[in-house]
Amino acid sequence: MSAAPAVAALDWGTTRLRAWLLDSSGKVLAERRGDDGLITAREKGFANVLEGHLGAMGAPDALPVIICGMAGSRQGWIEAPYVTVPAPIGAILRGAARIEGSRRDIRIVPGLAQRLADAPDVMRGEETQLAGAGLPAKGRHLVCMPGTHSKWVSVEDGAVAGFGTWPTGELFSVLATHSILKHSLGEHPAPVAADSPFFRQWCERALGEGGDVTSKLFAIRAAGLLQDLKPDEAAACLSGLLLGGEIASARRRYGASEAPVVLVASGALATLYGSALGLAGLAFRTVDADEAVRAGLVEAARENGMIGGAS
Amino acid sequence: MSAAPAVAALDWGTTRLRAWLLDSSGKVLAERRGDDGLITAREKGFANVLEGHLGAMGAPDALPVIICGMAGSRQGWIEAPYVTVPAPIGAILRGAARIEGSRRDIRIVPGLAQRLADAPDVMRGEETQLAGAGLPAKGRHLVCMPGTHSKWVSVEDGAVAGFGTWPTGELFSVLATHSILKHSLGEHPAPVAADSPFFRQWCERALGEGGDVTSKLFAIRAAGLLQDLKPDEAAACLSGLLLGGEIASARRRYGASEAPVVLVASGALATLYGSALGLAGLAFRTVDADEAVRAGLVEAARENGMIGGAS
Repeated sequence: MSAAPAVAALDWGTTRLRAWLLDSSGKVLAERRGDDGLITAREKGFANVLEGHLGAMGAPDALPVIICGMAGSRQGWIEAPYVTVPAPIGAILRGAARIEGSRRDIRIVPGLAQRLADAPDVMRGEETQLAGAGLPAKGRHLVCMPGTHSKWVSVEDGAVAGFGTWPTGELFSVLATHSILKHSLGEHPAPVAADSPFFRQWCERALGEGGDVTSKLFAIRAAGLLQDLKPDEAAACLSGLLLGGEIASARRRYGASEAPVVLVASGALATLYGSALGLAGLAFRTVDADEAVRAGLVEAARENGMIGGAS
Repeated sequence: MSAAPAVAALDWGTTRLRAWLLDSSGKVLAERRGDDGLITAREKGFANVLEGHLGAMGAPDALPVIICGMAGSRQGWIEAPYVTVPAPIGAILRGAARIEGSRRDIRIVPGLAQRLADAPDVMRGEETQLAGAGLPAKGRHLVCMPGTHSKWVSVEDGAVAGFGTWPTGELFSVLATHSILKHSLGEHPAPVAADSPFFRQWCERALGEGGDVTSKLFAIRAAGLLQDLKPDEAAACLSGLLLGGEIASARRRYGASEAPVVLVASGALATLYGSALGLAGLAFRTVDADEAVRAGLVEAARENGMIGGAS
């Protein structure tokens, strides 16, 4: 294994960017994080932002670049048109769109579109995490990728069969900041601990309701008035309610799978979702989200002939 | 029937106030609306705000005053302590708290508290609408009072058996303004029409999901990207989804009742909920919300001996 980079890999989102220099096995040789996501890059120019980060990491001039995320959306650098599911993961990666007129080989992994009349959905970036999650080539696997907009993906024999979005992170933030629950949670609730009895209790309640969350939101406010619930406890209730609701709803939609749920997450979020999946009685294994996106980007570079074969 | 007022009646909420002079049959002799709800009245003084409105309506000095709403909360004029359910509606009204030291007989109807560990809930104001909704003395009746925080109440033989809150109006407003759906709905979506095919379709979808709303929120955004959904159409989708989810959830909690659902609402909201209840296959009858609160206030005045017996 050489210390020379084989590819530059970027997870380029709406507000943030992460860039790595990787060898052909996916080993990290250099890393950069920036606030110059799509919004900033639209002003500064995508090529300028990219070259700034590559230069700071000492990337060679001819190093190929593989990108995933919102940089490939209609508002991004170029549009990498959605691949319609069902679709094999390898074929998705091979659909990467190439930036023309650059001295580098720069490609952006396409997002996924589920063009169902009654369940339209889209993703950009998570398809690359999925490709790097180390799923077996055979069998049915349910993948949970929590976040602002949590994605659950049903994978069958290496192909995306379908997926759904639960805006759990966004709901927590919007309700905590802008709804009547702000009086219950206060301005700066502490991060929710996965072993909080309030998190666990409200998660279990939500799991028993098949995804019905809205009927219990005001109960958090009422518990503040009637049961002297403290702000940090209220935040744990809301988190438990939303995670439990997400898991109950996804389980109802996709049914139980024989294989453990693949939880693609990092840090505190991985711990919280692990706790909630446990309360739901669902076996799971955790894949680090950062490692998954890097592995997926390397796989995309390989599928597009930008780097050599298997490491 | 005389033109002399028997009582002044106020529905005194957080941000708004409505006041009427009523004869003993509940007939409206004068009406005032103001923005001097609890928040303003805490600054100006509740007695000053009240006397200002009474003076403007030409109310006699000795006219008794009956009040419902947030003016009776801990942050209000005086706290009219919650009555714990189950409780007979007549007993709730007779629990009105009296303002001491006034030359008038002024009383505030108490709110209701549901002190269940797993479903705590409170209401203030809706208990008075309920009392004025003309419910039969016998039998089980399910009452829907839609709004910012919709209340569903199960009434058995003239007593409140239990109730729940669905923050449907608040969710619409918060999601339309602060979530990713603002890109789909635009800044000023048109009022949702009850016969909109988008309202009806998404309401039916939500009705089929037992109250699971969160799994379909992002689909509205995706429909904007994949199906060219227009802002007014997206608003109709969100409205249909939330109303359908509320009704499915309430139906799941309270079961079907033999008697028609009593819908206490006015104007466009009554029409929208009527449409959604119809899609749910639930028979209903509508009681005007304004008439209900006035009738409830007159009933409260009567139960507290502030005006004479039956008109």
